[in-house]
Amino acid sequence: MGARAGIVVTGTEVLTGRVTDRNGPWLAEELRRLGVDVGSVVVVGDRPEDLRAALAFLAASTDLVITSGGLGPTADDLTAEVVGDFCGRPSSVDEELAARIGAVVARLMSRRGWRVDPAATEAGTRKQARVPAGAVVLEPVGTAPGLVVPPASGDGPPVVVLPGPPSELQGMWPAALEAAPVRVVLERAQELRQDTLRLWGTPESELAATLRRVDDQLGGLEITTCLRDGELEIVTRYAPGAAGAYARLVDAVRGDYAATLFSEGPEVDALVAGALADRGLTVATAESCTGGQLVARLIDRPGASAWVPGGVVSYANSAKEQLLGVRADTLATVGAVSPEVARQLADGARDRFGADVGIGVTGIAGPGGGSPDKPVGTVHLCAVGPDGAVTRSLVVPGDRAAFRKRTVTVGMHLLRALLLGGPPA
Amino acid sequence: MGARAGIVVTGTEVLTGRVTDRNGPWLAEELRRLGVDVGSVVVVGDRPEDLRAALAFLAASTDLVITSGGLGPTADDLTAEVVGDFCGRPSSVDEELAARIGAVVARLMSRRGWRVDPAATEAGTRKQARVPAGAVVLEPVGTAPGLVVPPASGDGPPVVVLPGPPSELQGMWPAALEAAPVRVVLERAQELRQDTLRLWGTPESELAATLRRVDDQLGGLEITTCLRDGELEIVTRYAPGAAGAYARLVDAVRGDYAATLFSEGPEVDALVAGALADRGLTVATAESCTGGQLVARLIDRPGASAWVPGGVVSYANSAKEQLLGVRADTLATVGAVSPEVARQLADGARDRFGADVGIGVTGIAGPGGGSPDKPVGTVHLCAVGPDGAVTRSLVVPGDRAAFRKRTVTVGMHLLRALLLGGPPA
Repeated sequence: MGARAGIVVTGTEVLTGRVTDRNGPWLAEELRRLGVDVGSVVVVGDRPEDLRAALAFLAASTDLVITSGGLGPTADDLTAEVVGDFCGRPSSVDEELAARIGAVVARLMSRRGWRVDPAATEAGTRKQARVPAGAVVLEPVGTAPGLVVPPASGDGPPVVVLPGPPSELQGMWPAALEAAPVRVVLERAQELRQDTLRLWGTPESELAATLRRVDDQLGGLEITTCLRDGELEIVTRYAPGAAGAYARLVDAVRGDYAATLFSEGPEVDALVAGALADRGLTVATAESCTGGQLVARLIDRPGASAWVPGGVVSYANSAKEQLLGVRADTLATVGAVSPEVARQLADGARDRFGADVGIGVTGIAGPGGGSPDKPVGTVHLCAVGPDGAVTRSLVVPGDRAAFRKRTVTVGMHLLRALLLGGPPA
Repeated sequence: MGARAGIVVTGTEVLTGRVTDRNGPWLAEELRRLGVDVGSVVVVGDRPEDLRAALAFLAASTDLVITSGGLGPTADDLTAEVVGDFCGRPSSVDEELAARIGAVVARLMSRRGWRVDPAATEAGTRKQARVPAGAVVLEPVGTAPGLVVPPASGDGPPVVVLPGPPSELQGMWPAALEAAPVRVVLERAQELRQDTLRLWGTPESELAATLRRVDDQLGGLEITTCLRDGELEIVTRYAPGAAGAYARLVDAVRGDYAATLFSEGPEVDALVAGALADRGLTVATAESCTGGQLVARLIDRPGASAWVPGGVVSYANSAKEQLLGVRADTLATVGAVSPEVARQLADGARDRFGADVGIGVTGIAGPGGGSPDKPVGTVHLCAVGPDGAVTRSLVVPGDRAAFRKRTVTVGMHLLRALLLGGPPA
């Protein structure tokens, strides 16, 4: 029968996009690993009536509801109180919890060197220590405690109340899973696998034809496809009993897309990092239009200092010349946005950082700077390694942000093709 | 009486966080500008029953429902069909629309140099051209048309169906606003202002005390506060009639937080870019632990090439020496993670790029590399300009990603303090 959960993410800052929610996806993935299916994530602002409506919506169709956010010391942080009311359990201050929170706050404030108004702190602390009657308290990781609130009536799902900062939410998660009302739900969970195939250079409409052709062999698979920055992802969820159907899907994709299937699991970032680590190679970057996003993406992975000595962002032509050795006559004759300069950037990065691999990117991110010959979106990339070079020139559609993101992904595929072969970048 | 809208974002890739949703926040902000209040955004996967439940939830309490995503050519893209059924309007293929989509697809494929299987393309095209009876078709910006579907019964909100790619959704938005069923809703909209105060170095609990003290003067304001990377944002929404109350809030915050109030509107990024542009100054970066995220953030703004000649990411000590002139004896005596090296990085960036301002960042992002003297999270920053230098040393809590994000924000405040004064970084 399985178990289903719903997630409520609270906070006007999330609803309006000032803060990008990381908690909904993180919780959805953790729950999937535990075999709990998540059908929807509801994002609400700080108005109690919207939170109440979201709780009622999710409680009607799930075995477990999880909230994130709204546990701070300010008056707009209302989650604990609203959830308590929703579950029929009025809240009151837990004095011992208030003392523990007070000690944490005092320590944090002194570490940051912030002045503290004791009365203000106490009011906030006592607000954070309000606990619905009969709820399980999850000890604070930051200053806010979490809660597991079972319904007073015995009818409906328990609600797990977690703080908004991702590090606090993730730190509190193991304790939430240990709470008795949650354990009861997890006992009903059933394993749900998730596997991903990744294509580089196949349009979604073509893949759709393959899926239609083998549709009758794919019973029990929940397949979603997503085209993102030129990569086509095929993500499949299935119970262990449908493993045979998944193997048939993999066979069909291998057969139809041998030329573009670059991964049966890992993302391109992991493939590149793995290839560099396995072969003991280093990579340095020289970027113009991507403005540091390529080197930042390479460095995102822990341990990257072992294979990324660094990179140069050279917007100005003088910087291209002086820091990377791009030739003035090349800049004068073919211009900064050219395959020749991409190659010289790659060579320069390799040379200046003493790296095994260099990658150069030059293009026009827009909105300004385009011309009839070189429209906005024009970009040239080159990666040079011990065994040769690979290049790519293209015109990327979309706005400045989309251009930079897509171009960085093309750069990752250039490195993948250079190091591992497979579909050309 | 006002108007309320609800938003449904579809796609398992969004639900699971493989793709970060940009559409929900964008739509929420656009609707707010139009005076339409958005109480919640529901994210659902690709299962039709979850989408139907979300539509029913939002239709019960709003005047307008907007969906994004699920309009592609693959079988998991079901939004148009599900919305049509929900509104009581069965779908069929619009032949003229299918022909227009087919032409667009053919053009796109040939531009990308992708091989095309005509049968596969046609099946996808005909799927994308299915239109619920009586719906308004919004012409494709990419390949997918949008829809405005009024309820067949005349009871309930119209549903606006938009594609998932943000550039397509945003490109189609003006046409959606022109559709008659949407115009009727917009006529009921009422202006809703939003203003933001920003503090640097005030804890949320202290601000809570101020808000409690003046609470009785703030009628009609919807205030939310959010602490993010050390910045405390106070975002207030209010109808024009509550402008006096908002002025009283501003007065109270100015009075209590003169030392930390750094902006009554613009983000720190805009303040820094504005100061550089106004004074005709340029800035170059030298980053270690932030790995290019600082220069990437500076370059995020269109036109940044006028004030950012570039930056160096120097993970390796040899790169710090050779590319930025950091002294080997400094590295040997005090180590790479030190205030001295931060200063030399800033000087080196300024010198090598011929920039007016240089900023250097050196620290330990983790998870490895820490020591008792210099724990993970230790970071030193220095910004040097024509009028002097500002520095900051701190230990940033949190994981690698949080460290880098927070450190980049500290770097932005270092530039702000150097260029504009105000709260110290």
